[in-house]
Amino acid sequence: MSRAVRLFLLEKKLDFSLKTERFFDKRDEFLELNPLGVTPVFIDFGDVVLSDGIAILQYLEEVYPSNFLGNTPIERAEIRRIIGWFHDAFNYDVAQPLIFEKVYKRFLKQGYPDPDIVRSVKSDLHYHMHYIGFLSEQRGCLAGPQLTMADFVVASYVSIIDFLGSIFWDQFESAKLWYMRLKSRPSFRHLLADQLPGMTPPNHYQQLDF
Amino acid sequence: MSRAVRLFLLEKKLDFSLKTERFFDKRDEFLELNPLGVTPVFIDFGDVVLSDGIAILQYLEEVYPSNFLGNTPIERAEIRRIIGWFHDAFNYDVAQPLIFEKVYKRFLKQGYPDPDIVRSVKSDLHYHMHYIGFLSEQRGCLAGPQLTMADFVVASYVSIIDFLGSIFWDQFESAKLWYMRLKSRPSFRHLLADQLPGMTPPNHYQQLDF
Repeated sequence: MSRAVRLFLLEKKLDFSLKTERFFDKRDEFLELNPLGVTPVFIDFGDVVLSDGIAILQYLEEVYPSNFLGNTPIERAEIRRIIGWFHDAFNYDVAQPLIFEKVYKRFLKQGYPDPDIVRSVKSDLHYHMHYIGFLSEQRGCLAGPQLTMADFVVASYVSIIDFLGSIFWDQFESAKLWYMRLKSRPSFRHLLADQLPGMTPPNHYQQLDF
Repeated sequence: MSRAVRLFLLEKKLDFSLKTERFFDKRDEFLELNPLGVTPVFIDFGDVVLSDGIAILQYLEEVYPSNFLGNTPIERAEIRRIIGWFHDAFNYDVAQPLIFEKVYKRFLKQGYPDPDIVRSVKSDLHYHMHYIGFLSEQRGCLAGPQLTMADFVVASYVSIIDFLGSIFWDQFESAKLWYMRLKSRPSFRHLLADQLPGMTPPNHYQQLDF
């Protein structure tokens, strides 16, 4: 969710600086900011300290509005449903196991990705990518005709999986058209410039036309 | 989250009827209501179909307001942070593994709870219960002096674990005082009357003074 918060800050043209936190080190100073010990943590004007990505996004939308959370309770419920879907199911089925297999195992020197897990993740990923394609084809964006918080959250999750080289875009034409639109936004280019030491994203990762 | 939605409907004195869904059967008619195939699903006036517990709660608070979501963006962010904590961490560390070990295994005839998993859950549960105690002691309720959506969501999760007989309340005096207040609300008594075929909650489960 740190990526989604950054996208939102950039979309809203707010000034901010980033600090890297190796949250698994469980530094006392960090646990004081968020006792749960996970990123993102957001500090507004030096005194408002917020954690939980979804809470931060909604705070930003309330304090610095840009119409990313719908106009009616039903629209907001649909945006939140899609965010919940990806924050819960996509994260659990795809993002967490893949990040563990492909990133943590490497950094923690725990061996190679388990092919059985990678295969099962691929089948779940397929399902979620088709759902993205279905929604965006029907509606234009995920929750309706306009970009909302849902698009930014989902695109953040997708960008991580794409960084890991696990999305074969020619299988997902509709999702690809949607993701191209997100990628072409200036806010997104900042994310795509991120690097992880020792890991190289696939060639298409930063390309707007891929 | 179905329990939290029911609490909210009762707190708001809204008429509703319950339908049991064996979501693991993946009925087509149910997947049409929520393609993710999980409960809760909420139908308002026969045509508005909503899913995702957190989305439903916020919809209810927007359409039938009762001041359960704070008065300022900072208050709302804190309420959402606590909900996120329990929906993510408590659910993942405690509720899901315990429900699997103690309920699903029994219904699916997959043997007895794994003592190693039950032990590790117990240690995580300890940590979360102390956090509930810490917050409610400092503030009165979890997010501040007044009851909010956070209290109802957290109490719903706690009630499930308590049904399974896994909370030893004499270890958690502050959390117990908080939970007693929740339990004494008329809305809560409906939840506590729930039964699961073949399972009996501990004696204290329905008692207001336990």
